[in-house]
Amino acid sequence: MCAMYQPKSKSQANSAYPKAVRVLIEQFALLPGIGTRSAERLAFHVLKSDAETATALSAAIVAVKETVGHCGSCFNLCDGDLCGVCSDPQRDRTRVLIVEQPKDLIALEQTGMYRGLYHVLMGRLSPLDGIGPGDLTVDQLMDRIRAGEIGEVVLGLNPTVEGDGTALYLASELKKFEGLKISRLARGLPSGGSLEFANKAVLADAILGRQEMG
Amino acid sequence: MCAMYQPKSKSQANSAYPKAVRVLIEQFALLPGIGTRSAERLAFHVLKSDAETATALSAAIVAVKETVGHCGSCFNLCDGDLCGVCSDPQRDRTRVLIVEQPKDLIALEQTGMYRGLYHVLMGRLSPLDGIGPGDLTVDQLMDRIRAGEIGEVVLGLNPTVEGDGTALYLASELKKFEGLKISRLARGLPSGGSLEFANKAVLADAILGRQEMG
Repeated sequence: MCAMYQPKSKSQANSAYPKAVRVLIEQFALLPGIGTRSAERLAFHVLKSDAETATALSAAIVAVKETVGHCGSCFNLCDGDLCGVCSDPQRDRTRVLIVEQPKDLIALEQTGMYRGLYHVLMGRLSPLDGIGPGDLTVDQLMDRIRAGEIGEVVLGLNPTVEGDGTALYLASELKKFEGLKISRLARGLPSGGSLEFANKAVLADAILGRQEMG
Repeated sequence: MCAMYQPKSKSQANSAYPKAVRVLIEQFALLPGIGTRSAERLAFHVLKSDAETATALSAAIVAVKETVGHCGSCFNLCDGDLCGVCSDPQRDRTRVLIVEQPKDLIALEQTGMYRGLYHVLMGRLSPLDGIGPGDLTVDQLMDRIRAGEIGEVVLGLNPTVEGDGTALYLASELKKFEGLKISRLARGLPSGGSLEFANKAVLADAILGRQEMG
């Protein structure tokens, strides 16, 4: 065929799908990291799978919105009043590790190395985006410390400009509590990485924070 | 901390999530191309999004299973008796292009270069997997051609060993219809590619199928 090829616009092209398929592709494409191509593949997977599989996925989406909220104490994800960590009698109630978001808490829990409690800030200070202490759960954190049981606060914010800024702010506020120990997660070489490819900031942290060996 | 780090098993670790979140992550991870990490990201996206967005996704999944079936004539995806292509009065009813699956039909439709009808085989011959002509929509294709309106069949199977085998089988069956024109989609250099990196089979196709220039 000699005629020059003129591609049709995307919206026209997709009209070849039945409406329900088009809607599902659009819905999948709204998810993060899912482009139109992936959304098509997912929609075709749902089309091919049996009705129970599709219903299970659909029901799981509704259930998560209906049953999951935030822990009344630490703001972790939770399907009751208190989350699994806060309601666990085995946890050390004198330590609180402060993180930005529930995902960070999960990542730390997966190590199995920390037995204290957490406090989820639900974000970090970001003056440029207009996010101040009032938009985070800072007041609730101060209330928890005022209650008196907590002896050490570990700052577990992300090692970014905004995370560091938030940590500095919190440290200055927390210093007002007499006798409260304040620490932060160690900085240094990432385990499994190599010196050769570490950047200057990582190497500087590794030198400044060098740890004594037994 | 000097103790050697012993990672917990994955199933243990995930117990830090509320049950509904765990179920949703598992459901997302069942989708093709979605690993546990991506499934977590998607689940957190649903958690953060408002209730309507989540309901829309959930409803789209159910709707696609409830309303979408196959066209009674060409087996394209369809939410009525006949698909959009078959019910379009503007299409040329004397040509039928045979493809393996609805996705192939959509890909061809997106070019806007073909105005005839289609026939979706719903697979290809694969003797090793025990898939013969009876498992495909070959009988329905023959019935359509016997009805007499069709003058040309274009074989649009994938350029693979199984696709070629299926095309050869169909060509031999279709030759029994007198006066029926049988063709296949052109093989050659992929537009936008380069000669340098084309493999031998592509170059051989390009030479054998060379096209005269106006």
